[in-house]
Amino acid sequence: MNDIARPLTGKTVLDLTTALSGPYATLLLAGLGARVIKIENPELGGDTSRNNAPYYGANGLQARRTSETDMSVSMMLRGRNKESMTLNLKTPEGRAVLLELAATADVLVENYSAGVTQRLGIDFATLHELNPRLVYASISGFGAQGGPGSGKAMDTIIQALSGTMLTAGSPGDPPVRFGLPIADLVAPLFGVIGVLSAVLEGERTGEGQHVDVSMLGALTSLVACEPFDAFEKIGMPLRTGSYVPRLAPFGVFLTRDGWFALCGPTDAFSAGVMRALGVPELADDERFSRRDNRVHHADELHAMIAGWAQHLTVEEAVRRLEEEGVPAAAVRETGDAVRDPLVLSRGEVEPLPHPVFGIAHDLFGSGVPITFSGSSTSLDRPAPWLGEHTEAVLAGLLGYGDEQIAALREAGAL
Amino acid sequence: MNDIARPLTGKTVLDLTTALSGPYATLLLAGLGARVIKIENPELGGDTSRNNAPYYGANGLQARRTSETDMSVSMMLRGRNKESMTLNLKTPEGRAVLLELAATADVLVENYSAGVTQRLGIDFATLHELNPRLVYASISGFGAQGGPGSGKAMDTIIQALSGTMLTAGSPGDPPVRFGLPIADLVAPLFGVIGVLSAVLEGERTGEGQHVDVSMLGALTSLVACEPFDAFEKIGMPLRTGSYVPRLAPFGVFLTRDGWFALCGPTDAFSAGVMRALGVPELADDERFSRRDNRVHHADELHAMIAGWAQHLTVEEAVRRLEEEGVPAAAVRETGDAVRDPLVLSRGEVEPLPHPVFGIAHDLFGSGVPITFSGSSTSLDRPAPWLGEHTEAVLAGLLGYGDEQIAALREAGAL
Repeated sequence: MNDIARPLTGKTVLDLTTALSGPYATLLLAGLGARVIKIENPELGGDTSRNNAPYYGANGLQARRTSETDMSVSMMLRGRNKESMTLNLKTPEGRAVLLELAATADVLVENYSAGVTQRLGIDFATLHELNPRLVYASISGFGAQGGPGSGKAMDTIIQALSGTMLTAGSPGDPPVRFGLPIADLVAPLFGVIGVLSAVLEGERTGEGQHVDVSMLGALTSLVACEPFDAFEKIGMPLRTGSYVPRLAPFGVFLTRDGWFALCGPTDAFSAGVMRALGVPELADDERFSRRDNRVHHADELHAMIAGWAQHLTVEEAVRRLEEEGVPAAAVRETGDAVRDPLVLSRGEVEPLPHPVFGIAHDLFGSGVPITFSGSSTSLDRPAPWLGEHTEAVLAGLLGYGDEQIAALREAGAL
Repeated sequence: MNDIARPLTGKTVLDLTTALSGPYATLLLAGLGARVIKIENPELGGDTSRNNAPYYGANGLQARRTSETDMSVSMMLRGRNKESMTLNLKTPEGRAVLLELAATADVLVENYSAGVTQRLGIDFATLHELNPRLVYASISGFGAQGGPGSGKAMDTIIQALSGTMLTAGSPGDPPVRFGLPIADLVAPLFGVIGVLSAVLEGERTGEGQHVDVSMLGALTSLVACEPFDAFEKIGMPLRTGSYVPRLAPFGVFLTRDGWFALCGPTDAFSAGVMRALGVPELADDERFSRRDNRVHHADELHAMIAGWAQHLTVEEAVRRLEEEGVPAAAVRETGDAVRDPLVLSRGEVEPLPHPVFGIAHDLFGSGVPITFSGSSTSLDRPAPWLGEHTEAVLAGLLGYGDEQIAALREAGAL
């Protein structure tokens, strides 16, 4: 598929991001076909993700780096299809190079704390004057105006503030921290939507703009897709544990060898559940035939399903329910989920390449989960070593000669 | 801000979606400025969301509809900034109108089960022949090729299959169903990214294409942003309950009046925690001074923080930690989160308007969580009644006269 044009072919993105949220935004832009130039601070050894355990290399997966050719799995994943150049933006020479790059680029993405780009002299206003067409995207914890307290927004902080932690579990349970860093992952999706919208508008107006996305705002906006507090007022509580009584039969159930999920909120699905359980006559029982009554007898209904399930395997239970048309599925471990052949065949998850050792044994990473009929997407090019493309970018994009590059090195700018 | 152009000004979107996932995609497109024409089946009373409790109207929020001017909160939220027309696609006349509309539109979004658009004769191939520029987006459970079992993909089914349910809680706990319907919400974000990418590519090539997004693929791709199973192999388990020992001090803690989250994975943050606790000397204690040692003594460290917190209020605990530069935040209820003044001021959450009664008392819905410097976004126009714009669309967009429209009504097409 690589010879088909990609949606962002021809666009150049300057990537001033580190950690997860920003790099995931630019990873998607790279997957969509943009040329992404990752600009890393040589003083700090580049993106902090380069120093996240575990590492992968000649000896497979290890908790510690043991060789020059080991690369952190985080970087293998988030660095795909990107070029890397070093640039110390605190030196005047380094900043000057960035301004030159920004004058030629289509998009810049940064995820510094609020205020840092001003201090470095590379904020939107400055770059917009140099290149009015530039789309400048900022992803931060609370937005460009800054946030409360330390202003530091780790994913867990945003999960707490957004209400997300109190949407799972049972009443009275501690808050439930979600292992998926959902704030870190959702903000970049809105960041990409913002970048694409601004690029599209720029094709019409000739003008770029600032795109400002907050992790708190992104996740809270998803929470606000249902007014949960209003629902609670009329008896539709959020935290109902393994089952959802108001949709009964609905929930997760334990079998001999694992858990499965079952969703039977309609009369038709509920009747299917009764057939699967071998008690088709209960579909017409007044306790279970209509939704209001099922809600009233939800405990009884769920206990009946739990009793049936405990003697089966997950595979048997799901098959019997599916045969009766009831939505049901195994609760899978993340490792099994990312190896789903359907998901792999659609490129929604992709095997991870290592720059020296090729496709890593049994390591998978996110793909672009969009299938275009006329374009390709993929994230199949290995992540770069720190500064691997410094010379290529300076010479190729800016026309610098060897001496100029040597002078920059001497000045500590690279 | 409404007089500023929006990124999608001038684009027309045909919206053939129901329930949550599809309508959220077209809601975002509407917020970005597209004209969204929601096409509803009159036979079924339109989008099923119109019949979801609770309802809002003259008597405020109620579990049951008691008046003609009551509207479901789901529709008030998801229908904003959209027009509604009725069209029965199972009638030849209704299908013919859709084909005419598709010939003039820029984008079509549908979320039927796999195979339905073929049966209705309104699949991508058919419409692409009529209007090669049309971007045609499909959001489904497993993708255009269909899925396992019933093929019915409710959010809980996708949460189960994607591994998401086993990322929270403690080892041995039941799977944790997330109250936020995250699969329903994430798939449309990729759908919007796909639509914008294809529209952008179409500006260059003059050609539209099919954009096919699967809920399972979308959520699994986020799960694959970290290879959790590889991490578990080297001792970085996912399910660690309220605390994360490998990042200690890190977790949620109970005070006198509620919970707060604390993230102190670095030496500097950890030292800040010790100062907040009034034991600054422990920052240099060999048990706590370095990360490896903190991980080893995580239980002791977390117990110490829990003991300190239990005598404070959330506000006191968070303030003391913030004063020492430690990321910390209250764990909020969803209702408090959506009323955060910062989030409201950025339009990431917006008050919900009712078509008759104006801004609803104390009801909030998602905004577009992207702040553009040169464009506006907002979702401030009330949702339409079923078929409110049928005549306006037929007359205005297709030039139909009164007789033609009456004939369509008679044929049962509207």
